[in-house]
Amino acid sequence: MHDELNATLSAGESSTEHGPTRRNFLALGAAAAGALATGSFGSAQTATCIDIPERPTAKRPDPQPNPRVYSDKETLLAFRNHGHFAEFLDQPVTPLGMHYLLVHFDVPKLSANGYEISIGGRVRTPKRVSLSEIKARKQITEPVIMECAGTGRSTFQPRGIYVPWFKEAIGNYEWTGTPLRPLLEEAGLLDDAVEVLFTGWDTGVDLGVEHAFERSLPIKEALRDGVMLAWAQNGQPLLPQHGFPLRLIVPTWYGMASVKWLRAITVLNQPFKGVEQAKVYRYQKSATDPGVPVTVKRVHSVMKPPGLADAISRYRFVAPGRHLLQGMAWSGTGAVRRVEVSTDGGRTWKDAQLGRPGGPYSWTPWRTEWQVTQPGEYVLSSRATDTAGNIQPLSSAAIWNRQGMGGNVIERIHVIVQPGVGRSGDHVPSRPRQAVSGADMPPPTK
Amino acid sequence: MHDELNATLSAGESSTEHGPTRRNFLALGAAAAGALATGSFGSAQTATCIDIPERPTAKRPDPQPNPRVYSDKETLLAFRNHGHFAEFLDQPVTPLGMHYLLVHFDVPKLSANGYEISIGGRVRTPKRVSLSEIKARKQITEPVIMECAGTGRSTFQPRGIYVPWFKEAIGNYEWTGTPLRPLLEEAGLLDDAVEVLFTGWDTGVDLGVEHAFERSLPIKEALRDGVMLAWAQNGQPLLPQHGFPLRLIVPTWYGMASVKWLRAITVLNQPFKGVEQAKVYRYQKSATDPGVPVTVKRVHSVMKPPGLADAISRYRFVAPGRHLLQGMAWSGTGAVRRVEVSTDGGRTWKDAQLGRPGGPYSWTPWRTEWQVTQPGEYVLSSRATDTAGNIQPLSSAAIWNRQGMGGNVIERIHVIVQPGVGRSGDHVPSRPRQAVSGADMPPPTK
Repeated sequence: MHDELNATLSAGESSTEHGPTRRNFLALGAAAAGALATGSFGSAQTATCIDIPERPTAKRPDPQPNPRVYSDKETLLAFRNHGHFAEFLDQPVTPLGMHYLLVHFDVPKLSANGYEISIGGRVRTPKRVSLSEIKARKQITEPVIMECAGTGRSTFQPRGIYVPWFKEAIGNYEWTGTPLRPLLEEAGLLDDAVEVLFTGWDTGVDLGVEHAFERSLPIKEALRDGVMLAWAQNGQPLLPQHGFPLRLIVPTWYGMASVKWLRAITVLNQPFKGVEQAKVYRYQKSATDPGVPVTVKRVHSVMKPPGLADAISRYRFVAPGRHLLQGMAWSGTGAVRRVEVSTDGGRTWKDAQLGRPGGPYSWTPWRTEWQVTQPGEYVLSSRATDTAGNIQPLSSAAIWNRQGMGGNVIERIHVIVQPGVGRSGDHVPSRPRQAVSGADMPPPTK
Repeated sequence: MHDELNATLSAGESSTEHGPTRRNFLALGAAAAGALATGSFGSAQTATCIDIPERPTAKRPDPQPNPRVYSDKETLLAFRNHGHFAEFLDQPVTPLGMHYLLVHFDVPKLSANGYEISIGGRVRTPKRVSLSEIKARKQITEPVIMECAGTGRSTFQPRGIYVPWFKEAIGNYEWTGTPLRPLLEEAGLLDDAVEVLFTGWDTGVDLGVEHAFERSLPIKEALRDGVMLAWAQNGQPLLPQHGFPLRLIVPTWYGMASVKWLRAITVLNQPFKGVEQAKVYRYQKSATDPGVPVTVKRVHSVMKPPGLADAISRYRFVAPGRHLLQGMAWSGTGAVRRVEVSTDGGRTWKDAQLGRPGGPYSWTPWRTEWQVTQPGEYVLSSRATDTAGNIQPLSSAAIWNRQGMGGNVIERIHVIVQPGVGRSGDHVPSRPRQAVSGADMPPPTK
């Protein structure tokens, strides 16, 4: 185990000061040998069709072949790392608490009192900046479409093992913060600066290594418009699980770049090689492929599922007639140029009408009408194209990677068209159903 | 399918005005026959070790034998119905967005403008009451421990099929609202009143029947202290997913009684027989057993997991030494009288110290110290006893039921004790780690 772990992490194990913490976990096997008390009541059965170890491992489990079978560990992660509610995809800003969440370890408990971050490394003037100093600086507010790099992991076959996202790893909060660039410029980047490292207060163990969550950006990306240190979402202090009291926001990149619970900003003169950079967020074709880094969001779109939901299968029921199909599209590689919709499982496509995004980093609304007369089962999909010419793939085969990163395959919403659906509840005296515009729902800013 | 469904729902299918909506779904089989477009790209494999239909069904799938294997449908439900973050079990009030959530269908989009509820049925003065009238009434604020009736479903063997909760289906928001009793008294209950039915705006399909979510309470329960119509949690307007703009709160009962998105209150002269009452929330020994209704919360406790988490297995790592073990306990059948803690997988138990709950309906904090010198693997558990003498079971066998309701079996937290754990991140210049008291975290009320 010891040698295997060293081999796996060799890139990050070198004696650079910015590799992963040197207190690696090498005793996973030893601890297992000393197992004390696993069996005095109850006992876990061994699964025969999914193979994910119960205990910590120094490597990711192998991808699993069956898309309909998940382990208890993955289900636990799904409960912790909740998704966006697709029925709110008609809202330009994601309501509080509906944004997707990915927390690798535990949510740290931090105090706003006395909170400060360090800005150091290859800068002329290392400093510590307090939260109140940060909040007194220039303030910007922008809706930013955020998406987990592991989006669509469960659409790959075999599928990588970590949080088993389908299509719900998205959100579009309005973030309030201060631009990062002036802070870096005031600290004074030295000539040999190549990357900026962001370290969070969240620590834990992954891939056999204890480490704080930390990720770097190339200098050019760190200086980009829109990159900010944010202390509020939707007009109120960050929720603890979203990075209270301060986090980074990096538009266009997948969510892992937007480091939460920010503790330190360190300018580096060489590329960062920590666990989350060198091992976790990679497009890899095999376990030994070092892969290429996951960076900007691939072009993607999602649809608000029409009609009524079945409680367990989540199939949709709609009556024959005209239905508004609507949703959101975005891309990290350009603006959204086109969204097409299919109602026959991807055989034929029809252009949807695009709306205006709420800002330069927000998602783009789209809509079209679906007229259906024939009862039966339909599969609805949307497909976005961006100004760089990127288009969502119909199958995840072409983009398969071992860890299930960047899964932007088109989604498939199963709908059962059936007469008489959607008028329940009339046995209770009531006025006609209320408007569902959401126009005066709980305000996104307050 | 048609006959089967009618048989299944015969109790609710009678011509009473309070049975489930009469527009039942009888065409599930027919729709399947008309399947249009499931295969033009991608295709689902058949699972060999879990058997949960992909499509809507008129009955719950059979309980599944393997506790380590879950279906894609259950994983999807886990992403939607997120859990409490166990690392916040040292907080007396659950921070916003960390409360567990169970949404059977879709979150409805409602407007506060013009919102009103009806109060009718067996009352002298049926009326409609606006949200502003409700908010102008007597106001109370109480923390209330809420827990899903399906808590611990995944601890049963075989385990029932629905949201596959482990131990995270809990929360303790501070709810603000107006007591229900005066509203009912003003409406004037007629002599034949036996139950009060609460109907939500959320509608969908379950067990083959389209219906609004609705549940009843016996008159005595509806008139109890603490039962309120709530418009705020933690001092701000209800989040959409928690019932905006108005919901019921029923302390001591499992969460299904606290109907969200309240639309109508209807006083009944016979027991309600709708789907959620007669079919879903039952302790049943078999598929044909009508079972007994799920009502008050069983005695239960949970522990804040100590140390650091492993990202996938969620095993904990701690260094040898002294550790504070703490958590929360509650019961719907009495006050918490005792909490014991085991660090050897349930072989031996030691009494924990009880704290004061934040109110009559809040959870009770507990704490104890764990001194561990020997590296190895340990299993930590807590076990609560209430003043009625109820105690958490060591095994779910004694409380097994087909739908996996009321699973209050003791939890098992796997901890690996290993020297040198928990001091990561020192390569980044930083002050000592901040206090984690949470004393000035985002305020529960604002």
